[in-house]
Amino acid sequence: MPEDKSFEYKYLPSINSPADLRKLPESSLKQVSNEVREFMVDAITKVGGHFGAGLGVVELTVALHYVFNTPVDKIVLDTGHQGYPHKILTGRRDSLLTIRQKDGLSGFLKRTESEYDVFGAGHASTSISAALGIATARDFIGKDYKVAAVIGDGAMTGGLVYEAMNNCGVQNRDLVVILNDNNMSIAPNVWAISNYFSEIFASPTVQKIRSHVWEIAGKMDSVGDRIRHAAHKIEGGLKAILTPGMLFEALGFKYFGPINGHNVNGLVDMLNKVKDMKGPVLLHVITQKGKGYAPAESDKQFLHAIGKIDKITGKSLAKAPITIPPPTYQKVFGEAMTEICSTNPKVLGITAAMPDGTGLDILAKTYPEKVIDVGIAEGHAVTFAAGMATEGMILVCAIYSSFLQRVFDHIVHDCAIQHLYVVFALDRGGLVGADGPTHHGVLDFAYLRIIQGMIVMAPKDEQELRNMLYSSIHDYTSAPVAIRYPRGNAVGVPTGPMKSLPLGKGEIVRPGLDVCIIAIGKMVSEALKAAELMALDGISVEVVNARFVKPLDTELLSDLSLRFDKIITVEDGQIQGGFGSAVLEYITTLPLFPDVLLHGIPDIFVEHGTQEELFHDLLLDGEGIATVVKEFIGFPEVVVVD
Amino acid sequence: MPEDKSFEYKYLPSINSPADLRKLPESSLKQVSNEVREFMVDAITKVGGHFGAGLGVVELTVALHYVFNTPVDKIVLDTGHQGYPHKILTGRRDSLLTIRQKDGLSGFLKRTESEYDVFGAGHASTSISAALGIATARDFIGKDYKVAAVIGDGAMTGGLVYEAMNNCGVQNRDLVVILNDNNMSIAPNVWAISNYFSEIFASPTVQKIRSHVWEIAGKMDSVGDRIRHAAHKIEGGLKAILTPGMLFEALGFKYFGPINGHNVNGLVDMLNKVKDMKGPVLLHVITQKGKGYAPAESDKQFLHAIGKIDKITGKSLAKAPITIPPPTYQKVFGEAMTEICSTNPKVLGITAAMPDGTGLDILAKTYPEKVIDVGIAEGHAVTFAAGMATEGMILVCAIYSSFLQRVFDHIVHDCAIQHLYVVFALDRGGLVGADGPTHHGVLDFAYLRIIQGMIVMAPKDEQELRNMLYSSIHDYTSAPVAIRYPRGNAVGVPTGPMKSLPLGKGEIVRPGLDVCIIAIGKMVSEALKAAELMALDGISVEVVNARFVKPLDTELLSDLSLRFDKIITVEDGQIQGGFGSAVLEYITTLPLFPDVLLHGIPDIFVEHGTQEELFHDLLLDGEGIATVVKEFIGFPEVVVVD
Repeated sequence: MPEDKSFEYKYLPSINSPADLRKLPESSLKQVSNEVREFMVDAITKVGGHFGAGLGVVELTVALHYVFNTPVDKIVLDTGHQGYPHKILTGRRDSLLTIRQKDGLSGFLKRTESEYDVFGAGHASTSISAALGIATARDFIGKDYKVAAVIGDGAMTGGLVYEAMNNCGVQNRDLVVILNDNNMSIAPNVWAISNYFSEIFASPTVQKIRSHVWEIAGKMDSVGDRIRHAAHKIEGGLKAILTPGMLFEALGFKYFGPINGHNVNGLVDMLNKVKDMKGPVLLHVITQKGKGYAPAESDKQFLHAIGKIDKITGKSLAKAPITIPPPTYQKVFGEAMTEICSTNPKVLGITAAMPDGTGLDILAKTYPEKVIDVGIAEGHAVTFAAGMATEGMILVCAIYSSFLQRVFDHIVHDCAIQHLYVVFALDRGGLVGADGPTHHGVLDFAYLRIIQGMIVMAPKDEQELRNMLYSSIHDYTSAPVAIRYPRGNAVGVPTGPMKSLPLGKGEIVRPGLDVCIIAIGKMVSEALKAAELMALDGISVEVVNARFVKPLDTELLSDLSLRFDKIITVEDGQIQGGFGSAVLEYITTLPLFPDVLLHGIPDIFVEHGTQEELFHDLLLDGEGIATVVKEFIGFPEVVVVD
Repeated sequence: MPEDKSFEYKYLPSINSPADLRKLPESSLKQVSNEVREFMVDAITKVGGHFGAGLGVVELTVALHYVFNTPVDKIVLDTGHQGYPHKILTGRRDSLLTIRQKDGLSGFLKRTESEYDVFGAGHASTSISAALGIATARDFIGKDYKVAAVIGDGAMTGGLVYEAMNNCGVQNRDLVVILNDNNMSIAPNVWAISNYFSEIFASPTVQKIRSHVWEIAGKMDSVGDRIRHAAHKIEGGLKAILTPGMLFEALGFKYFGPINGHNVNGLVDMLNKVKDMKGPVLLHVITQKGKGYAPAESDKQFLHAIGKIDKITGKSLAKAPITIPPPTYQKVFGEAMTEICSTNPKVLGITAAMPDGTGLDILAKTYPEKVIDVGIAEGHAVTFAAGMATEGMILVCAIYSSFLQRVFDHIVHDCAIQHLYVVFALDRGGLVGADGPTHHGVLDFAYLRIIQGMIVMAPKDEQELRNMLYSSIHDYTSAPVAIRYPRGNAVGVPTGPMKSLPLGKGEIVRPGLDVCIIAIGKMVSEALKAAELMALDGISVEVVNARFVKPLDTELLSDLSLRFDKIITVEDGQIQGGFGSAVLEYITTLPLFPDVLLHGIPDIFVEHGTQEELFHDLLLDGEGIATVVKEFIGFPEVVVVD
């Protein structure tokens, strides 16, 4: 436990599992909640992590584990940003300080980490589907445990939620869904139904509404037109009484709420009431993101996830860097978009609930009307963009690489087949670091390059990102285009005006004689470091910036094949089917071709850690690449044993 | 026009575009509708095609083109099964007899086919997203045309619809969505809200409902609990009056309907009323699938799509085959599932609205409780299956290859990362024929083999499909598994008991000396035909059945690399990143390796045609493979010029 003497932990030190929690009297739960919150604030301000979501569900988490007999009963949390109090209560209290660090706790739920982590998720909107699966399995197996899913309002924009709720209604299995409504997803709310809820809560008085109901009920005269007449007449009044429940009830749920999500005893009472009900139940709980920690309450967006901060003030404790670091790729992207949009009225940015993460917030500051945020709804973002493209608009979809996996078919079926021109700013390509396997964007080169006609590229530095964005919008206008760049700081080169890059042309960035490294994206600078290191050993390394995964620079590859006996491709993506695989497919069609080694990420799920740690471990930093190349060329001349 | 003298076409011969239609008086529209229907029945019974959906929307299509100023106004149809009357009215009447045939009309909408085909779609649920994109573009460009989307109730289970409708509510653009509700998607209904609608229509009397409303309105006394009390009390009565509209109104739509979709003048009136309204409008239209053609009305499932049939009786006109053809892979799959489920209580089949197409209807006949149909909701199907897998159930997801593209991330994030064991019966892999580019399953090997730990295989014949299914369920239980097989008839080998296949092991099916063909799935039998042909030229061809795309049989590949100078891989999938690419990645890691040629589908969207035509054109039948192999080995010994 923390050594902070100003706060006394009465219960938490002895809660090593939910069973311990359930031994306590209900009257203790408010204090338990306070202790969980204090503990979480103390730990996460020290080590950083996702913050606001967890603080908002402290009481809900305490109540769930108090009422449900976990782990026999199954609680499925969505996404897992909200999972920290759950980790504290399920035997991981003392390891919370290791969260998101290499070999430490995951920042999300993880089945291999705890039997209480019923279903892992780093992508949103999956919990109801998974919970319904568990409830269905329970019924087939003939068991009688309870199943609950928790989902935030931010995830309610995702179509999977609707597919799942619809199927809950059809299957009619016993299942409790808790809608954790903090009216604040990662970005400001984009859920139409939430706006609708807001109307309810803002409704002037209950009396006024009641009088409206009487009025309407007396005037309705035909089934088909009643709603319309009524809704027009009272402007929200009838809606206000009838909607939140009706909506979910139409999908087959029994609806309860909304109730206060910070009254732990009220939550326990309500959960006790609904947990044994038959069929699907939706309990609507109102919470406050960042609840109970002043700096988080006042700046929710900032405190979605934090680095190390001062516990009292909320100010960052990160040491000021000695030199100013290069801008992030996200900042470079946002600024380049702003430049482009200042002159080209056909260009818009689109995001699925990540304006800040992607840098599109920068564009929105200058041109708020030029950023469309559809909420967590990547599929719609892409098909919508394809629809706009039919009318000549150019949509730049800024989506994280691992989330773009959700829209593979939308790219194929709605964009590529129709030759519709949509630009994908594929953020967080490669290894993202602390968020781990659900967030690493390592499959992107492989799943995008197989799409017919698609253009796929990755910049070696921030100026090249600018140039690629410019070229995508102004030059390559016959097919969907993806520009893939990593999370974090760019290289630090000076930036200037954007210019066109010829389609499918790479460049030699360092001439050499002995061996050739063909690198892509972030790996170009690491390959150059490797070349420097190897020069110390007298090895002359040519380094090529491929720029394009598709179309490949076949002319350059043919030339390199003539000049080198050994070529190594380097990518921060998965080897199987990736960039190197594309190079290999081409090179082996040549009459004579060199030995080719594909270097990248092997066929495993890479765990979390800092980006530096992960690249180092996978031999994808300069030093590691040098090691791999030396082995490949047999330097020093010894037989390499696997 | 058809030569059937029993029906007189008064208007249709002169309707060569919607502009011609709009010149007619409104009083003629009923007759126009009858002519369109008669024409469609006449044509499609002659040549086959999708049938029921189009017949159901004849009046709606006439009304839409009558009211909206197409092609200036934009009408987006979902999926396009319902597009035949649209094609008849938009200048393609006389080419309807070519539909779904090579070089003929597409069976779906297609932008390159007509300016009236605003957005193409072979996969369901995309129309509202695309239409909102078009409406948004319109507003940015400063134009004022109208935009309408038509969507069937069957597509309403897809999450994309909800994402799109939600975003319509938030963006609040002028847009008309027409819900074409025939209470019959491809499979019987699985949409909870539709069940809800049914309650309304079945509601005893309007009087009874009205009295309920009075009763409730008088008794409601607190906002939070009103709905629940009310709903319980009247058991559907209040719901019945208030729901259909409220649901869509909660999402921000103005709701109108339901109205009769076969009263063309009523439709025109209503469309005229709603088309100039501000904000998103939903018009709920009730239609009957197969309307107006007796055989279709009485057997809607059968008449979703038809071959050539007798116009009067609806009986098939396909000639009886001289020999009994082999069973389809779908039938083999359904029967194998039935066998497995008879002994293994942990196995279930799951489908996304395709029980008949996939063969799971066979399982459902014996064990109806063992088939779960989630509606058109592939994402939920997979995440739900992953949830069931956490409890030890084994879900066999039977999904068409091109539709599985929609759940790439669900396989990665919900199954593979968590090592959850779900079996994908990947139907309609390869070229499907008449349905064309949206339905060809040519990317599957490539996008599945890159998923970490995934097992991907394809059977050479029906017995191997049985063995693969058996092995997937009983032996390979550590990762998601895909078994990929084609549309249509199997090979015709005798089938016997199912048996285990060793993981990652291929087999030599024909020994040879000169050159080796490594084939996968359907291509094995074609490769054998090629070997037979080449034997006539004195060329000794070894044919290997790879069985597995992942994990590869590295032992066998190493052995083949020692024995042959030339190896050709053959797959009915895309070359880029596909099966051959995986073989190449491995073989080029060997110290010495042969020349490898990758043969498969090039980086293009293959158009529609019969499967035989397409395989022939792409040199993927026995004859074509022989040609490619001969060129590869330089037989006869001449220089091959590209």
